[in-house]
Amino acid sequence: MSLAQKTIKTAGNPLEELSALLAVDMKAANALILKQMHSDIPLIPQVAAWLIAAGGKRIRPLLTLACARLYGDMSGRPYGLAAAVEFIHTATLLHDDVIDKSEERRGRDSANVVFGNQASVLVGDFLFSRAFQLMVADGSLDVLRILSDASAVISEGEVMQLQTANNIETTMAQYEKVISAKTAALFAAACEIGPVIANADKKAQEAMHTYGHNLGMAFQIADDILDYAADGKKLGKTVGNDFREGKMTAPIIIALSQATPDEKRFWNRTAAEKSQTPDDLPRALDIFQRTDALTRGMDMAHDYARRASSCLAGLPPSALKAILADLAVYAVERDR
Amino acid sequence: MSLAQKTIKTAGNPLEELSALLAVDMKAANALILKQMHSDIPLIPQVAAWLIAAGGKRIRPLLTLACARLYGDMSGRPYGLAAAVEFIHTATLLHDDVIDKSEERRGRDSANVVFGNQASVLVGDFLFSRAFQLMVADGSLDVLRILSDASAVISEGEVMQLQTANNIETTMAQYEKVISAKTAALFAAACEIGPVIANADKKAQEAMHTYGHNLGMAFQIADDILDYAADGKKLGKTVGNDFREGKMTAPIIIALSQATPDEKRFWNRTAAEKSQTPDDLPRALDIFQRTDALTRGMDMAHDYARRASSCLAGLPPSALKAILADLAVYAVERDR
Repeated sequence: MSLAQKTIKTAGNPLEELSALLAVDMKAANALILKQMHSDIPLIPQVAAWLIAAGGKRIRPLLTLACARLYGDMSGRPYGLAAAVEFIHTATLLHDDVIDKSEERRGRDSANVVFGNQASVLVGDFLFSRAFQLMVADGSLDVLRILSDASAVISEGEVMQLQTANNIETTMAQYEKVISAKTAALFAAACEIGPVIANADKKAQEAMHTYGHNLGMAFQIADDILDYAADGKKLGKTVGNDFREGKMTAPIIIALSQATPDEKRFWNRTAAEKSQTPDDLPRALDIFQRTDALTRGMDMAHDYARRASSCLAGLPPSALKAILADLAVYAVERDR
Repeated sequence: MSLAQKTIKTAGNPLEELSALLAVDMKAANALILKQMHSDIPLIPQVAAWLIAAGGKRIRPLLTLACARLYGDMSGRPYGLAAAVEFIHTATLLHDDVIDKSEERRGRDSANVVFGNQASVLVGDFLFSRAFQLMVADGSLDVLRILSDASAVISEGEVMQLQTANNIETTMAQYEKVISAKTAALFAAACEIGPVIANADKKAQEAMHTYGHNLGMAFQIADDILDYAADGKKLGKTVGNDFREGKMTAPIIIALSQATPDEKRFWNRTAAEKSQTPDDLPRALDIFQRTDALTRGMDMAHDYARRASSCLAGLPPSALKAILADLAVYAVERDR
């Protein structure tokens, strides 16, 4: 029975449905992820495992597997590349948490808190190198090009984010450029290598690249809204982190676009000058309420989700296709 | 006129002789290095230029060029890979300086002091990705394998170094393992890709790999001695850095191997407990005098230099070969 004909028993959460549909594949990819984070230097797998074994959604490797299967690849080849994609993601998380001085990740102390900044930077470097070793073992220069390009763009996005932080003049276009680079680029690459593995044509690669890009945009905008709206326990990290850091994300940019002079002073003090009191986060949430900032941010995310789904239009009907369409909506509506 | 027949006018410093012999090539490689560190995000070339344009010896890209020419390659192909090697090196320097909280590099404030830790980590990530983009553009999976393997080993070496720091039980074998990974691996890789570019055989690759490894070992041991013995101005960084950080390098390990009980307490306090007074560095230098630690360290470095030279034995006589042999001695006897 082909994947296209397989019926899905789980209902509701498309990420769980995708994991269930690709359960055998994900088991193999996960085993490879755990195996490949090995090093003779015990601290390296310890730090890597802290993040990788702690769970996480594994959405990027799932996308690689899904997009390879979607174009007819039934080989074991995507496993190594799914692991490479997850390692690049994990490396960026390790470095991000050092840069943001984060204290929590996936519901527990972040690696920088437990193992220190030095180990986090170096194990990030190791996982990044290991990702390239996995790509080299696979042997496709196209895949190497797609993922090395994405990696360069990710670091550009992170630098842009550094520079827009605490700048209340940041425009929505600048914000979208940042998240396109820091998040959507890896989603796009993870999806694009699927048809490459399956030897599908350029058109298929472009379609999956665009699907991944739009999914990543929807995912990140929703993430930035969840940072204000989520239940902290479900999210697995502290709510209001972006606010405390003065990160310029969709909600603040929307609120600023219609701020009263008094509110403008509020954002200037809290985000630009980073001078905050405990009353400020509740006040920010009040302003979001008045300006409809979170709802309007969700609308933006839904727009991207729709664009993601439309990239699947040319594909024949299949369970996998249906789930990937649902996944775009789920990226926006998830509660963590 | 082939390179082998070309006579060299500069005398004395083999690094300058090598730069002179390969002047046209190095000019092209340098131009590519400056061009390829470009990004639309201005902070990225700013940070990269701070380190790259500040000079540095460019020894690793020179080695790639030299080892390609040594095996008869006369194409422009090594330029991109020489740039890739320099970018990997620069990325590790950026991350190292964050990890070591260094304040000086190449005679001026280090990038982390000028641009902050966050930018240093991210621009390191960018240069690392850019290095892989350059390798992908070159298109050799062998080169990609050699340099991705080396990159993984470098980060392992850095983690090992974290763990041996402040541990006065560190053995000479452990120290050599650390520097083999953190330094010699990239020297070995930079040399090995030369014959790969020139389509030389496996034996040539192995010979250049071993030459580079031994050269890198000699270079790093000398570096660790210079950290105590150099003229700070010539070295371009503060003398005694390793002492202040409690890094376990050759001089301390040699001194510890014949320490009196009082000296053992001294090393325990200064290196393990990192409790230091301004009198401690002069006292350390006195102990090195008594135990002949710096001279004996130099002997170790010279041993590696000899091993490096012997790897060149199978090659026909040429100016390039003679300079590479001299370079091994220079790596030990340089004053900065």
